[in-house]
Amino acid sequence: MEERTYRDIFKWGELSKELTLDDHVLEFLTKTYPNVNTKEKYLPGDAEVSLGQKSQLSKPVSEKLISIVGKDNFSDSDVDRAKHSIGRFFLDSLKGRLKRIDFPVDAVVYPKTEGEVIQILAVCKKEKIPIIPAGARSSVTRALEAPKGGISLDITKHFKQVLKLNEVNSSVTAQAGIYGPELEAFLNGKGYTCGHFPQSFEFSTLGGWIAARGAGQASTGYGKMENMLLSLRVVTTEGILETKDYPAASIGPDIDQMILGSEGILGVITQATMKVRKYNPDNSSMTSFMFPDFESGVGAMREIMQGGFGHPHFFRLQDPEETQLSFLMSGLEGTFKDKFLQWIGFKPFQRSLMHVIVDGDKDYSRFVLAKATKIAKKYKAFQTGKSPVLKWLEQRYSSAYLREPFMDLGVMIDTIETSVSWENLLGLWKEVRSYIKTRPETFCLVHISHAYENGANLYFIFLGPMKKNDELNEFEIFHKGIIEAIHKNKGSLSHHHGVGRLTSAWLEDEIGELGVKVYKGLKNTLDPSGIMNPGCIIKD
Amino acid sequence: MEERTYRDIFKWGELSKELTLDDHVLEFLTKTYPNVNTKEKYLPGDAEVSLGQKSQLSKPVSEKLISIVGKDNFSDSDVDRAKHSIGRFFLDSLKGRLKRIDFPVDAVVYPKTEGEVIQILAVCKKEKIPIIPAGARSSVTRALEAPKGGISLDITKHFKQVLKLNEVNSSVTAQAGIYGPELEAFLNGKGYTCGHFPQSFEFSTLGGWIAARGAGQASTGYGKMENMLLSLRVVTTEGILETKDYPAASIGPDIDQMILGSEGILGVITQATMKVRKYNPDNSSMTSFMFPDFESGVGAMREIMQGGFGHPHFFRLQDPEETQLSFLMSGLEGTFKDKFLQWIGFKPFQRSLMHVIVDGDKDYSRFVLAKATKIAKKYKAFQTGKSPVLKWLEQRYSSAYLREPFMDLGVMIDTIETSVSWENLLGLWKEVRSYIKTRPETFCLVHISHAYENGANLYFIFLGPMKKNDELNEFEIFHKGIIEAIHKNKGSLSHHHGVGRLTSAWLEDEIGELGVKVYKGLKNTLDPSGIMNPGCIIKD
Repeated sequence: MEERTYRDIFKWGELSKELTLDDHVLEFLTKTYPNVNTKEKYLPGDAEVSLGQKSQLSKPVSEKLISIVGKDNFSDSDVDRAKHSIGRFFLDSLKGRLKRIDFPVDAVVYPKTEGEVIQILAVCKKEKIPIIPAGARSSVTRALEAPKGGISLDITKHFKQVLKLNEVNSSVTAQAGIYGPELEAFLNGKGYTCGHFPQSFEFSTLGGWIAARGAGQASTGYGKMENMLLSLRVVTTEGILETKDYPAASIGPDIDQMILGSEGILGVITQATMKVRKYNPDNSSMTSFMFPDFESGVGAMREIMQGGFGHPHFFRLQDPEETQLSFLMSGLEGTFKDKFLQWIGFKPFQRSLMHVIVDGDKDYSRFVLAKATKIAKKYKAFQTGKSPVLKWLEQRYSSAYLREPFMDLGVMIDTIETSVSWENLLGLWKEVRSYIKTRPETFCLVHISHAYENGANLYFIFLGPMKKNDELNEFEIFHKGIIEAIHKNKGSLSHHHGVGRLTSAWLEDEIGELGVKVYKGLKNTLDPSGIMNPGCIIKD
Repeated sequence: MEERTYRDIFKWGELSKELTLDDHVLEFLTKTYPNVNTKEKYLPGDAEVSLGQKSQLSKPVSEKLISIVGKDNFSDSDVDRAKHSIGRFFLDSLKGRLKRIDFPVDAVVYPKTEGEVIQILAVCKKEKIPIIPAGARSSVTRALEAPKGGISLDITKHFKQVLKLNEVNSSVTAQAGIYGPELEAFLNGKGYTCGHFPQSFEFSTLGGWIAARGAGQASTGYGKMENMLLSLRVVTTEGILETKDYPAASIGPDIDQMILGSEGILGVITQATMKVRKYNPDNSSMTSFMFPDFESGVGAMREIMQGGFGHPHFFRLQDPEETQLSFLMSGLEGTFKDKFLQWIGFKPFQRSLMHVIVDGDKDYSRFVLAKATKIAKKYKAFQTGKSPVLKWLEQRYSSAYLREPFMDLGVMIDTIETSVSWENLLGLWKEVRSYIKTRPETFCLVHISHAYENGANLYFIFLGPMKKNDELNEFEIFHKGIIEAIHKNKGSLSHHHGVGRLTSAWLEDEIGELGVKVYKGLKNTLDPSGIMNPGCIIKD
């Protein structure tokens, strides 16, 4: 189905799978926010897409690009330009509803081959036209905006092939524009899994995962992208950079690790070789635990990660407010289960829910789960069984679809994530929560989604009515405050979403003046004319 | 004890622990090499150290350096200059015996503080004097040579402190000049281990491990340095580069991964924060297996690494020639054990010995060992128990001491290592072995010392009489041929020793022209005047 309205382009997920809020949620919202009108759409964003600014590409350049990719693989329609200039950040959606695409690209090209990518880069280098490499555009860091105009180079149309499954090496080589589900379906069919399941799984690509240093819901076990990548090919304006799939090596600085997280500023990732693992869903062992408080859950999680007996693959811990909200929103509040838990001492807004799934060999998954259970019980956890995990698994991708119907009612819902050492985790959690709670009527739901021996990732979800007629400005100031609070409390700018244009202002403070020089030097080597996603990661 | 002769400076290990060859070995040598005279030292290298070339440092520069570090921390004596201009490569030792230090530094400085390092770099930048950062100088890649002269900046005298053990984060922060045993003793005392045990453990430093992207004997379980490093501080001529100890992050390209493997060409690593693990030696489970042939052993090893049930920490597989030589040299040949093994079908020069040690949690170590045993038996292995592992553990560091007494008899013994995907492992093993065996009377002992899901490391040990009066030239041509053969058969230039000046001629072929530009760009950012270990990794 062709997308023709703003709403179509800024909303998450497939149109056909659009969610409506169920009764529990509506009841919760009307009870919590009496001013929210659940009968009428607020800022529905259904207008036709019209950018109000024509493509700035000159006719000779457009013709040159068309001569490279063919007419069918070039577009400067308002819809395509708009689609390619926003990601999936809350702000992108909000701007869409407000009919604003601030920094549109001038055109979109869909190269068919690496040779065409090389030619496009050459034309743009000569003409000094910015290029924004695009996968499935699920960026939440404003990495796709084109403040200087330019073209979006979209590889999702033609770079979709699995090139080689190597069962001896336990690896797969694929083109970078392949979507998560296509790659995973192919692998599952052969008895393997890619092990990478970001919430954006349905609408993200292999290349995007690498460019963002992504993590998935199972990355505690399978590793982040930087742990799964074996080698890659990148087309730059200075030629092709290609690495080899050694299991490990010592040949100077690691080039893969320079491209990982580069968000399109160094070149276009065209293919990659990744580790794969055996796909044995029947082997998985899972359970959940309720802890009396977040601190106990964190203590158990840390002890499990440092236990020297292997790790869970999926490992999540919800803080008390998130635990409580999920009780509310799933209709569990006030049920017998809830009352029983309260009766045995697990109080609302204190208790904390943990999910554990261990994949891999069947005996291993049972072994690790038994070890984790023993530690959880030491921290006074009550084992709540598989059902909360199964419920979470059911909606692990679709929960992201909730944002649009919330926004339809004028309710903001957004997330921000960071990584932090164990030592600083609770302090950061408290301080950032306090900051978020200074916003009137705002919920702050926090969970740990990825754990390590040395620390973890924290996910903050914040939810509250938008400030009418000042939605954008109010959000931006609030959001900046959250980043400040995270940064002040020793959290990283990002664990797996990247920097983009969202946190680039903090980059120097994060990696130092010399660190920024290192990034600039790298960019100067691979993109001396500065046309690759300018202003992304490194502020102009 | 002060070192005064060539022999003192080029030999491996402590003078007091010098090895003599035992009867089994002598018998083996005299039987195998009738021309070798076991009664007399060949090229003993006992001369006094005299470089025959005076320090090229101007007096004002020497005085400036002395004013920074103090008289006691500056030396331009021949002994100190010679020591600091060679590593532990066979060629270094051979040259020493031939009384040749081809590329000596002009002086050695031992800064006391990071401030002094900064000052030294500033002086040398201004005066365009090369600096070769030095740890314990166990490089086997000619990384310490000073073809353009310059000074050795040795941090092993004053950068030896453990700064912080962080038990919450499971990490330790230490100065980079600390030796392996000092760091490990400190950690063991607190119930932790660093998990990094290169054969050079006794004579290598934290900073050197990082600069070489080192691996240790237990790195299959604990990881290589790139998996253990959390953050670091590096003094460069352009300022200090410092990273943070996030467990993982997505903040653009990874700066730690640019310093890892940089072998002194980017700056001086002054401190690092590393993961630590619990030290529970009593928990370890170990065993050994005899396989009917190398191929079966490799098959089992691969299946174990890809089994999804955790990994051994130490995991080694000897090829048939190494297996047989260790029988010979340990006096096992012809014993009842040997005869029994032969009787049940494990033939000399076909059978292949595997060592497995699993650390960590006690139940985990048993669990993984049981899983590994099951797989080994599927590949027709005969379980040979703990004793071969214990024997190996006993001499895991001291076996490196053997080189000198072998050389005393005119017998060359050297090693070379590479990493390779599983798919290419057996081919590489065969081809490189064939090449090595083209050298007359040369043994070629091979083992896998580090295994991964996607491939492994191969260690080649070669042993044969030196070519009298043409020792150096003959070795260099032979050695170059080995590197060629590895490279042609898809092995990396190095798995954990680095590039140095030894394989820099192959760098461009390995990482591509653009890859080399990336390295040069990085160097240009952090060392624009090109004084940091010039010619190392990147050929001039």
